[in-house]
Amino acid sequence: MSNPVKIELIDREHIQAVVDNKSLGLARLELVAAMCRFNTFNSVKRAKSGHLGTSFSAMDIVTYLYFHRMNTLAVGVDSPDRDIYFSSKGHDVPGLYSVLYAGGVLPKNKVLMLRRFGGLDGHPDVKTRGIEANSGSLGMGISKGRGMAWAKRKLGRKGTVTVMLGDGELQEGQIWESLQVTAHQKLGNLTVIIDHNKVQSDLPIDQIVSLGDLEAKLKTFNWEVRRCDGHDYAALDKTFTELDAMADRPKIIIADTIKGAGISFMEHPAALAANSGLYRWHSGAPDDKSFSEGVAELKATIAKLSDKLGLAAPAYDDMTEATDGEDETLEFQNQMGEPVSLAHRSALMKGVSSEYVAEAYGRTLVELGKQVDNMVVLDADLSADCRLREFEHAYPDRFIECGIAEMDMVSMAGGLASQGLIPVVNSFASFLAARANEQAYNNSGEGRKIIYAMHYAGLIPAGPGKSHQSVRDISLFAALDKMTLIQPCNAAEAEAATAWAVKEAAGPVMLRLVIGPSPEVLPLPENYKFEVGKGAVLHEGDDAVIFGYGPVMLHEAMSAARQLKDRGFGLRVVNMPWLNKIDSGWLREVVTPYEQVYVIEDHAPVCGLADRLLTAMHEQNLTDGRRVQRFGVEGLPACGTPVQAMTFHGLDGTSLADRIGRTAVVKA
Amino acid sequence: MSNPVKIELIDREHIQAVVDNKSLGLARLELVAAMCRFNTFNSVKRAKSGHLGTSFSAMDIVTYLYFHRMNTLAVGVDSPDRDIYFSSKGHDVPGLYSVLYAGGVLPKNKVLMLRRFGGLDGHPDVKTRGIEANSGSLGMGISKGRGMAWAKRKLGRKGTVTVMLGDGELQEGQIWESLQVTAHQKLGNLTVIIDHNKVQSDLPIDQIVSLGDLEAKLKTFNWEVRRCDGHDYAALDKTFTELDAMADRPKIIIADTIKGAGISFMEHPAALAANSGLYRWHSGAPDDKSFSEGVAELKATIAKLSDKLGLAAPAYDDMTEATDGEDETLEFQNQMGEPVSLAHRSALMKGVSSEYVAEAYGRTLVELGKQVDNMVVLDADLSADCRLREFEHAYPDRFIECGIAEMDMVSMAGGLASQGLIPVVNSFASFLAARANEQAYNNSGEGRKIIYAMHYAGLIPAGPGKSHQSVRDISLFAALDKMTLIQPCNAAEAEAATAWAVKEAAGPVMLRLVIGPSPEVLPLPENYKFEVGKGAVLHEGDDAVIFGYGPVMLHEAMSAARQLKDRGFGLRVVNMPWLNKIDSGWLREVVTPYEQVYVIEDHAPVCGLADRLLTAMHEQNLTDGRRVQRFGVEGLPACGTPVQAMTFHGLDGTSLADRIGRTAVVKA
Repeated sequence: MSNPVKIELIDREHIQAVVDNKSLGLARLELVAAMCRFNTFNSVKRAKSGHLGTSFSAMDIVTYLYFHRMNTLAVGVDSPDRDIYFSSKGHDVPGLYSVLYAGGVLPKNKVLMLRRFGGLDGHPDVKTRGIEANSGSLGMGISKGRGMAWAKRKLGRKGTVTVMLGDGELQEGQIWESLQVTAHQKLGNLTVIIDHNKVQSDLPIDQIVSLGDLEAKLKTFNWEVRRCDGHDYAALDKTFTELDAMADRPKIIIADTIKGAGISFMEHPAALAANSGLYRWHSGAPDDKSFSEGVAELKATIAKLSDKLGLAAPAYDDMTEATDGEDETLEFQNQMGEPVSLAHRSALMKGVSSEYVAEAYGRTLVELGKQVDNMVVLDADLSADCRLREFEHAYPDRFIECGIAEMDMVSMAGGLASQGLIPVVNSFASFLAARANEQAYNNSGEGRKIIYAMHYAGLIPAGPGKSHQSVRDISLFAALDKMTLIQPCNAAEAEAATAWAVKEAAGPVMLRLVIGPSPEVLPLPENYKFEVGKGAVLHEGDDAVIFGYGPVMLHEAMSAARQLKDRGFGLRVVNMPWLNKIDSGWLREVVTPYEQVYVIEDHAPVCGLADRLLTAMHEQNLTDGRRVQRFGVEGLPACGTPVQAMTFHGLDGTSLADRIGRTAVVKA
Repeated sequence: MSNPVKIELIDREHIQAVVDNKSLGLARLELVAAMCRFNTFNSVKRAKSGHLGTSFSAMDIVTYLYFHRMNTLAVGVDSPDRDIYFSSKGHDVPGLYSVLYAGGVLPKNKVLMLRRFGGLDGHPDVKTRGIEANSGSLGMGISKGRGMAWAKRKLGRKGTVTVMLGDGELQEGQIWESLQVTAHQKLGNLTVIIDHNKVQSDLPIDQIVSLGDLEAKLKTFNWEVRRCDGHDYAALDKTFTELDAMADRPKIIIADTIKGAGISFMEHPAALAANSGLYRWHSGAPDDKSFSEGVAELKATIAKLSDKLGLAAPAYDDMTEATDGEDETLEFQNQMGEPVSLAHRSALMKGVSSEYVAEAYGRTLVELGKQVDNMVVLDADLSADCRLREFEHAYPDRFIECGIAEMDMVSMAGGLASQGLIPVVNSFASFLAARANEQAYNNSGEGRKIIYAMHYAGLIPAGPGKSHQSVRDISLFAALDKMTLIQPCNAAEAEAATAWAVKEAAGPVMLRLVIGPSPEVLPLPENYKFEVGKGAVLHEGDDAVIFGYGPVMLHEAMSAARQLKDRGFGLRVVNMPWLNKIDSGWLREVVTPYEQVYVIEDHAPVCGLADRLLTAMHEQNLTDGRRVQRFGVEGLPACGTPVQAMTFHGLDGTSLADRIGRTAVVKA
């Protein structure tokens, strides 16, 4: 589906010429940054997602670093003596990509392939030229940067290490671990710069978890601390130059910035005022009208700055046609090395989406709020994404915002549960299941009932990349005592699962939820009851049976079943929301007619439903004469559109139908 | 095996009488604390392990809280309006047990059953009366205490919440998360007290990761901060009383204490001086000579203080006989509800231990240090326990101490690896695999080769309790991209595995290591080579085959095989060090002769070797006509002696032999 608006790009040659015109001094960098903002804005619009607010707040700093301070472009991104820069927050990478394009590191055909397979990941990934570290999950930057700085010192290499932090990121505990350890180890070739734009996902930091007097705080951690305007090149240069002299300790700069800087209506003071205190431009692409207005404003800025420097304004290359439709027709090799074309696959993921399981979850929480007095909801700065806003407003006295501090949130939940409350903790699965894992184990050791709502579970959406795609969370919670793992397949089941978890479950529950729209509304049988250990048949077929869970993979299984039916092969599709509790009688009934059993995982192939089903079948002697085969997300999850990622992993309906067709034992 | 020294106890009636004599004022609490120290000292001696240094540094504070400040003993530990106290560091619990015994909460027959099944866990556990929170893994206390305080406020309950922190614990990132969030939420009914004894596992904090100016640091986090002498009752009382007035914000007290306070040669200034700067009394029971000297000194102190207060010295009840041998003859129900007696089991775990796999690992690291220039070893304040001291001293320039900051350590390793170094990170499995899990995933996403040495893996030693016993780590690392999971069964295999990981592995490796002595030196075949995916037969038998890994469980499998042999049943025992890589040809060869296949896991029953073996067998059609059965650590790991814990979980050789005898399909 093409963008109805024009996608344009300023060619790097023009930007490079401005950079090379050193006689213009630091003033030219403002123009360079404006042009990089323009390219970033277009890439995010084309991607239909990405983080503009923070790409723009950090843009002047990144421009300053690459085009004035660091040796990286001069010595080359492969030189062991290069200066290293990376962003710990990571979601500002669309801005960095534009800078790397301008610097000649990334080719033109990549820069508009943001969040596309074979293009540029939604969060930084070292497979991309010029990217030094994977990030996107917060808080790891100082630690990793210290490792690089330590290695440079040890190996006698030249070059400094500069790490960008977000300010909301300072809520993560690892930041403070690393501040202490780094100061103790006295690494002098490491500089941290905080993009202090004062706004988190959609609210000011001071409303989520205030940082207090940040300068004073950092000074007590024995870092050399400076503060300056992160949009003022002279101030940045003065600050960095001053710090060069201090080689015996790590340095940190608090750069005061404006979130969304460069487009007036996206700049946070104006944007907060215009939208009742909620910041709209943290993530997601602008609507067409905002995009046109932003483009006009950026072009005007570029014209004005060019004029001021006595330079010609750049040409704006129309890239609309060059990129139109390429996402849907891409041809590539899938993970198994087979050539695939998306042309006849894309339709499958494009059904009119009529529901979100996460929305049903949020709605049910509000309903449960009325019925269950002792239920408390906790959030880690993802209230909107986790569909908690309605509960937050309806029950402010039972909503606890913990900021980006997942460990703290989960242990607090343990304390709440110890006093008889029922906490429901929320974050993205990849963060909650991993980062707060030991805290969940501790709660489990106390026998507490806590509901862990794991949002954004599974492979899709694949645009943000592997820091956000969660294909390990089942494994991470599987061995917790008395933990019940559930993933609902549609809105109705999400309601039932949420209510069951809060009202009926005796122990802790992990609710695994897809964050995006369901590709189709899956049809649960009329008489289906949500009962522990029992799933439901969604589609009948005589030749084989496939188990799956969640709207994404079950949609593909249904699609495969429909395709196989046309080929005369009957595939029974079974929704199994209970990922680690299987009713043996039900299982026997469901698999008995079949010799061939498949499992599709919205997860890595190990430690998911397939392991549990195989074990349960084996325990009942049901593996004799039957084959159980699994399809899971092998290796690292691919970044791209849903169709791209699913097809790469061989999990789209068409690939599934082929894989089943190739492997099924046809009954005699 | 009895202690050759006398185990004594001061009866709580005597201590209670002193407490009740309120006319003596705060001065009497010094005596109470001395008597509690005496009981603690004896309980640790009898347990043969436990943490004395921190039990003693915190003792005056805990005594003050329970016998002067808190309402807990008055209103009862079940009252919803009680004051709540718990220690976040947790390893100071032997001291707390003595206070709870003195306060009438714990019965006399429990207080000397430290680290015994059915007794008192090595770290706090809420199943014990009077214990409010599980701890032992560091850093969770403020978060959990805030949950309790929030719930009290919400539910309109009376009572305050007081949380004890260690000072080394301040290296954990969660502490700083929780400091920020708690200040933001303005909880006034929460007070934190830091037992600032200046010493970590065995070195001063300032040598590991300095805290800097702690008072200044905490003030910038917007807590009300006070500092006082943690052994001065008047100072403690003044400080707590002052803080009572401040109901609008959380409060934190830095209590300056002496590690090991109460026994002169254990007090840290003297103890550090006497032992070349290494503190000897953090954990472990004193040797007999030190014990006798300590007992004498404590008795003298008690006599002196009693005399000063005009009180009679207490009687010292000789408990040696009352407790002698009871660990070995205990009768209880195992996890399956069957009555078991330890009398004929205990011998099995008592073989002369001739080796430690961890020691072989440490030795190999030193050897590899010579051969592999780019290998770097990282530690999280467990250098001695992880057998790194020799490497630390041999290669100080390639040893990096990160303190109790596992996340930071693992991300730093990622940075080191990005520059071409080979990092070997070390901590206990339960901390490293869980707390640094997302950081390991991030490293894995970058394709870095890092060796994760997971010490203290598995169920044994069971004395420290579930915070330390690691039966989930395989599940936590199982779904990481390209991760190889290995657990060696003896010293020779530990050497081979370590060398393979550093020199040959292409990707990341998790080395799973038992920390304690191997119950026996397992006999690897003469021609055995350490090859990817292939294990080794340790014992032959014709009737069934059992797979296991690591010295603890394989010892039990061998024991079962020997017992079954006497009954005419042949059990082949196979050592399988590759937990997620299985050579299909080798597997076919090993299992083909058998209809019955067993797997014993030093891990939870899910996501371990059994899941992978069952899957691998099924993929080769080897499950047809064969039964695969697993024995794993079900539920939460039991605390106790090795024999107690193994027997409770039905994993000791005798239980295994019975379970195999009951279930094995006897070939026709």
